[in-house]
Amino acid sequence: MIWAEIISVGDEIVCGQIVDSNAAWLSQRLAELGIPVRAHAAARDAQAEVEYAVREAAAQSDVVIVTGGLGPTHDDVTREAVAACAGTELVTVPAELEHLRALFASRGMEMPVSNEKQATIPRGGDVLHNPTGSAAGFRVRVGEASVFVLPGVPSEMEAMFTQEVVPLLPRAQGVIVTRALRCLGMSESLIAEKLEAEMDLNGDPKVAFLASGGIIMVKFTSRAPTRALALERVAPPCAHARAVLGDVVFGEGDNTAADAVARLLEARGATIAVAESCTGGLVANWLTDVPGISRFFLEGLVTYSNESKTRLLGVPAELFGTVGAVSEEVARRMAEGVRERSGAAVGLGVTGIAGPSGGSPEKPVGTVHVAVATAGGTVHRKLELRGDRALIKDRAAKYALNAVRLALCGR
Amino acid sequence: MIWAEIISVGDEIVCGQIVDSNAAWLSQRLAELGIPVRAHAAARDAQAEVEYAVREAAAQSDVVIVTGGLGPTHDDVTREAVAACAGTELVTVPAELEHLRALFASRGMEMPVSNEKQATIPRGGDVLHNPTGSAAGFRVRVGEASVFVLPGVPSEMEAMFTQEVVPLLPRAQGVIVTRALRCLGMSESLIAEKLEAEMDLNGDPKVAFLASGGIIMVKFTSRAPTRALALERVAPPCAHARAVLGDVVFGEGDNTAADAVARLLEARGATIAVAESCTGGLVANWLTDVPGISRFFLEGLVTYSNESKTRLLGVPAELFGTVGAVSEEVARRMAEGVRERSGAAVGLGVTGIAGPSGGSPEKPVGTVHVAVATAGGTVHRKLELRGDRALIKDRAAKYALNAVRLALCGR
Repeated sequence: MIWAEIISVGDEIVCGQIVDSNAAWLSQRLAELGIPVRAHAAARDAQAEVEYAVREAAAQSDVVIVTGGLGPTHDDVTREAVAACAGTELVTVPAELEHLRALFASRGMEMPVSNEKQATIPRGGDVLHNPTGSAAGFRVRVGEASVFVLPGVPSEMEAMFTQEVVPLLPRAQGVIVTRALRCLGMSESLIAEKLEAEMDLNGDPKVAFLASGGIIMVKFTSRAPTRALALERVAPPCAHARAVLGDVVFGEGDNTAADAVARLLEARGATIAVAESCTGGLVANWLTDVPGISRFFLEGLVTYSNESKTRLLGVPAELFGTVGAVSEEVARRMAEGVRERSGAAVGLGVTGIAGPSGGSPEKPVGTVHVAVATAGGTVHRKLELRGDRALIKDRAAKYALNAVRLALCGR
Repeated sequence: MIWAEIISVGDEIVCGQIVDSNAAWLSQRLAELGIPVRAHAAARDAQAEVEYAVREAAAQSDVVIVTGGLGPTHDDVTREAVAACAGTELVTVPAELEHLRALFASRGMEMPVSNEKQATIPRGGDVLHNPTGSAAGFRVRVGEASVFVLPGVPSEMEAMFTQEVVPLLPRAQGVIVTRALRCLGMSESLIAEKLEAEMDLNGDPKVAFLASGGIIMVKFTSRAPTRALALERVAPPCAHARAVLGDVVFGEGDNTAADAVARLLEARGATIAVAESCTGGLVANWLTDVPGISRFFLEGLVTYSNESKTRLLGVPAELFGTVGAVSEEVARRMAEGVRERSGAAVGLGVTGIAGPSGGSPEKPVGTVHVAVATAGGTVHRKLELRGDRALIKDRAAKYALNAVRLALCGR
């Protein structure tokens, strides 16, 4: 088995000023090539730190990919650090120096002397040409490992990886494929329990669980000589899990709950209109993230004031004094009102207390009522959510979309 | 000097399925506390790999923060790995087990047995309580280092770091303070040019620029023995830059354009109602992210269909056949209609083509009309945005909120 490791170099990453997306991009490409990644590391722009990270990685993995720190300024030290790890010094590559001079000339500029170091690589290494930028990359051996060094600018790094690195990578034994089922409405541990009773979670494909933003993902990963074979290996347990979990699975891969609702609306030729209070337009926003939704989504009303709930949805004003705006009755009236007035097949009503203020002992922050109205009647559920304002909005909106999905599934 | 190191645990990170944002968040918080971060690492969900990463980090740094791998399933191994590094075994914390049972009970569910391990920590460690989620965190010594272990769910991790970890961190020798001005309506290079003519960008405080999500941040950073001294050093250039940039600065720190609008509405005792088409509720969603906005935000209408623009806002139906739904006239009618019908002081109208379909040579994808209606009249601007559907929605909504802000400033 060949293993890879990725090192991102830069103070801006280690100090948290930018989020490193290069490592994730490289991990995905390497997985597609059948080379699993063992670990990521990020090192500051300090030669000793970069050397430490490269030596560690080269001792553990067959392939090490280093990005960043190839610029012309004094704080760019990756070249020097990797040359030291390889036990050699930097030498100028005449063809790269020519390319660099031509690049500056094409911009009508004279090349500053400081840029000359961007055409140097460790003696004995192989040049990785940078077609769009000024920093040449290189490959060099450190111990038993092949170390590839690329610039940190994502567009340059990605082009060089594809064109220059891929042909030089060791041939892997196969391709790694992951399929992820996305679930709502059941806890991670209960999903795991149900699947554990039905299948081997540690076999091939390997099964893993990930909870993120209120959504549980069940991931099936397998390795095979070809992508088609890996997909074939993943398909049966994936289908089995879908059957076991039923309506809990709302989609796969990057699909959102709004995507699932849009697909169901399209399949049924149905339209939707939504009336939101505490979610403040988040449900409408997610639905309108789906391309082409204008065929199914008629309108969204963010009726924040009581007056607007009455004027726009026909919620009887006396309900605010008796049961209150956050109540089952008002949620039902909102769903039914938006459905009737818009002429949509499905109406959604959401009312609740997102906080931080507005709660009471009877109706604490996080109390949310969701109602879905269809030709067959109106269903309602009360939620008791925890968290800050943003979290309550997020979870209430996800729950509401899931309630619409289940109603469209005839549940 | 105290140093810290951050380890993110999870196959989904090392395989590149998600981009790790926890490490950047933690680096920023630690810098604010005067504790620089030496390096980041990411390890797979494999006990030996997590142990290796923790031992390496504990040998190099004084503080190690580990996130992720505290879930209830078989692939969550961080507890076991860190206990092994500390040379001890896991023990159940009765109070945490109680909390966990109560959490499940509040959701009307029985706790599965697999969740019990989420209430365990290494013997001799200190519990870090998780107020919102099920996974308890902990602190334990590994060699000379303090190792803090937190869940990977960002909202839980962030709350626990602030409430539980910060009080336990060693006192640093100084504080690094950054103040960031947030700008809309001028390019990064023009902002830099204007400031360069007025102040030294490489002195103390150091001045840096960061463009992110259509917003330009101008950051002033200084280090001093106390927070008060560092703030004192940062204040004069920050005030000077505000004066130079004028209305281009809409806020500081984490403030959003919606926060700025909310502050202005409060200062003027004014209310707002918004009518959105292409932004699909995003403006309403951002406004309702602001706590207490219900005093100023009356309603938001996502009038996606033409019929709803006429019924809810009074846009004359003949306009759709003549100038079309994406036009200055319709944007103005939307802003004026929602203002009049809701009785709000300010009305916003946004109509455009978010794509990917729906464009034409005369009105390409990215064409957006924004109108703001007040007692003083209605202002309008046409935008020509580029990017995918999500980017066009985002930029149109930011521009629209900025237009409301400038109108409230009397511009």
